[in-house]
Amino acid sequence: MAEPAGRGGQYPMSMLDQVLERARRRRSEAEADLFDLVSIPSVSALPEHRADCRRAADWLADRFRWLGMDVEVADVREGGHPVVDAEWLGRAGAPTLTIYGHYDVQPADPLDEWETPPFEPTVRDGFVYGRGADDNKAQHLASVEAVTHWFASGGPPVNVRFLLEGEEEVSGRSLPDYVRANASRLATDHLLIADGSFFAPGVPALVTGLRGVLYTEIEVVGARVDLHSGIFGGVAPNPFNSLAHVLSGLKDREGVIRIPGFYDDVEPPTEEELAAWRALPISDQDQRAAMGVRELEGERAYSSLERRWARPTLDVHGIAGGFTGSGQKTVIPARATAKVSMRLVPRQDPGRILAALRQASAALATPGTTVRVTELSRAPAVRMRADHPGVAALRRAFAAAYGAEPVLIREGGSIPVTVDFQEALDTRLLVTGFGLPDDALHSPNERMSLDQYHRGVETVIHLMHELAATGR
Amino acid sequence: MAEPAGRGGQYPMSMLDQVLERARRRRSEAEADLFDLVSIPSVSALPEHRADCRRAADWLADRFRWLGMDVEVADVREGGHPVVDAEWLGRAGAPTLTIYGHYDVQPADPLDEWETPPFEPTVRDGFVYGRGADDNKAQHLASVEAVTHWFASGGPPVNVRFLLEGEEEVSGRSLPDYVRANASRLATDHLLIADGSFFAPGVPALVTGLRGVLYTEIEVVGARVDLHSGIFGGVAPNPFNSLAHVLSGLKDREGVIRIPGFYDDVEPPTEEELAAWRALPISDQDQRAAMGVRELEGERAYSSLERRWARPTLDVHGIAGGFTGSGQKTVIPARATAKVSMRLVPRQDPGRILAALRQASAALATPGTTVRVTELSRAPAVRMRADHPGVAALRRAFAAAYGAEPVLIREGGSIPVTVDFQEALDTRLLVTGFGLPDDALHSPNERMSLDQYHRGVETVIHLMHELAATGR
Repeated sequence: MAEPAGRGGQYPMSMLDQVLERARRRRSEAEADLFDLVSIPSVSALPEHRADCRRAADWLADRFRWLGMDVEVADVREGGHPVVDAEWLGRAGAPTLTIYGHYDVQPADPLDEWETPPFEPTVRDGFVYGRGADDNKAQHLASVEAVTHWFASGGPPVNVRFLLEGEEEVSGRSLPDYVRANASRLATDHLLIADGSFFAPGVPALVTGLRGVLYTEIEVVGARVDLHSGIFGGVAPNPFNSLAHVLSGLKDREGVIRIPGFYDDVEPPTEEELAAWRALPISDQDQRAAMGVRELEGERAYSSLERRWARPTLDVHGIAGGFTGSGQKTVIPARATAKVSMRLVPRQDPGRILAALRQASAALATPGTTVRVTELSRAPAVRMRADHPGVAALRRAFAAAYGAEPVLIREGGSIPVTVDFQEALDTRLLVTGFGLPDDALHSPNERMSLDQYHRGVETVIHLMHELAATGR
Repeated sequence: MAEPAGRGGQYPMSMLDQVLERARRRRSEAEADLFDLVSIPSVSALPEHRADCRRAADWLADRFRWLGMDVEVADVREGGHPVVDAEWLGRAGAPTLTIYGHYDVQPADPLDEWETPPFEPTVRDGFVYGRGADDNKAQHLASVEAVTHWFASGGPPVNVRFLLEGEEEVSGRSLPDYVRANASRLATDHLLIADGSFFAPGVPALVTGLRGVLYTEIEVVGARVDLHSGIFGGVAPNPFNSLAHVLSGLKDREGVIRIPGFYDDVEPPTEEELAAWRALPISDQDQRAAMGVRELEGERAYSSLERRWARPTLDVHGIAGGFTGSGQKTVIPARATAKVSMRLVPRQDPGRILAALRQASAALATPGTTVRVTELSRAPAVRMRADHPGVAALRRAFAAAYGAEPVLIREGGSIPVTVDFQEALDTRLLVTGFGLPDDALHSPNERMSLDQYHRGVETVIHLMHELAATGR
């Protein structure tokens, strides 16, 4: 067998074992990297964490520079967070793999529900706890570590690019703009998005569809100023009471959305998908236990997985206004605002849905109040094909690293940039993940299994090997 | 005519003009006192203003001591705010007038809607602006100033007691406990409560009924932890969506409360009251303008004044939980809590209403959520007679000071301690007020007309004179 050839040139196949061996020997370094990155509170939604977002971007960029990659930390939009673009195209003729990730994280509140501080990563029972540990720091860091090991052993067997953003959790447009503006340079054979999760412990998953999202604020205005409920109660429009009628009218107690026309364009899943989902190792009881609820809600005409993956829904995230301190204030506030988002499925058009929402909300409000619906962000649903060689390579990589091939699922969440990747780069997406389903994403005590993380590193090492073997 | 007799002994009737003259000459001192008191941020609801509440109590107690009254600043309940009890019983055989007031104020938020800072009293166009200027500082200070002028001219013509509390805005129990524990010592012929307002500019009012209140928190709990709306949306119970169904089910879009049995015990107003209210100089247009709303809401079967005074209602004051920051967070929170109060009318029993609310809320919540209703405070509605000599004296006092006799009205607000006064002291209540209806109580830019304040001082001077003339 050929000896390692150093960077560039022909790739010696014998290298794989050496790279895997190095990854196993250096797990403590990979963990130290993860703890470093999780300890940066890169909360994109909060202006006070603006500098922390840049610190996270710089941490990653420094690593890529140290590896010898070409790195750009691009400020794309005023007031946004930077895109980290790192590439190494030293394997002429080999396929190119682009790896997506986001270094920004959700806000950590409610803080008092964390057992250890969200930005002081702490290991308990094989899991590291911290905001962003799973979503998405370990998930893209697994690829960073994999590439690091390849560089230490002669260089990756494929061309590699990282595109890491800091606005995923706020649906920012920096990366989409960047991708569209640099589409020809960013051409890639495969695009790995590890922002999903395992379907269940021991069951990796490949995602064939993502729901879209339409995130709005619904503001209801009553009087010109706040009023005293004793003096004016009985004649004063109350924006909270009105909002209750709007919100309860948008989705009924059985989970059916009552916005006229809302379901008109919904594309049902195929019979094959439905059959595959029925075979998955999950029960309603499992899902109740995962959430800690007495009963699943939602449309009874559809299975629970169909409701989560292929049916649109509508959720209220918070309501601002009035008095929520301790004690009592008898105020009828002038205004109240609800954060409301809809998950959309294939063929639903966010623009049409927004118009229907506006009309329905206005009709539901009480007569003395006025409603204004503001769009905060939108992304259509996405479907991905599962019949290309990248999928076959990923299947083999998972089988090698975890001893199990991925099941085909959809995800209920949204990764808006997938739309831009599909449209601008016309590339093949590999949407998967290394975390476990109960890692408490977006919740207190978010965590990541260290074993899953290390096997994720190995999966990406194998994936590069398999893609190199497959060729372009 | 007899000369002033000094403190105690027989009251010389000629004194009235001298006292009024002194009040007119010393208006700037009365204003300075008001500005002093308003500048103390005695917000009873907020723990950080605890010391300010005591400062306000001490300010008043110091004045009473300076006047030579017997003063007690009583800490009645652990964690409460003190009761100021000041008495002068130097007019043997004369009636006793007790004056109620509350030195605590509502929280000032939203701060950014104040034109000048809430605790920096500022005069514009004859009004002083500041939190508590009307509610209730000027209103009880008018009596303090009146008594001051009487003391400077030989002493009041009646026995006088002040009972001032610091928990009116939080429905605290310190004063009620104090009154019940000291009932025999606190016996009084008349009890003046200036915590209402003029019915309209130029139209003083005597209140013959107050609504009660039941203030609650309705908490809805879904999952064990916050969930990601992408992953679990479609099957996860959402406490906000559930709360919307609870709240919209409690009161319909037409303002009719749908809690079973809610209206069962409602006592309608008398035909005489309804006729008197129809004659009052106010239109629905006036009320729309006062609130700055397009349309009055509420039960169409009843006139607007009946809805405000003699019909019970239900209002939401604020909803806590989830995410309300700027930007987007796709959380399905574990819990959401609404502050909800009901105004009650004569014969409605707060305990029965609470039980009915609990049952209705549980039935309205979505199937995967659990509701818990917590009572924060309760007070039944009160009716006051208008056929005793104190009312006649007050009529003459208003006529003298403002050139107009009061109309008989009810108030939609609650003054819970009136129930305790009626039950423990069996006394005759004079519930009135010197402020104007658009003084923005509980709202930004609360204000008090200085002219109304000064005439209020004169009204109390006259009232004491009239009560002395009436005798016991």
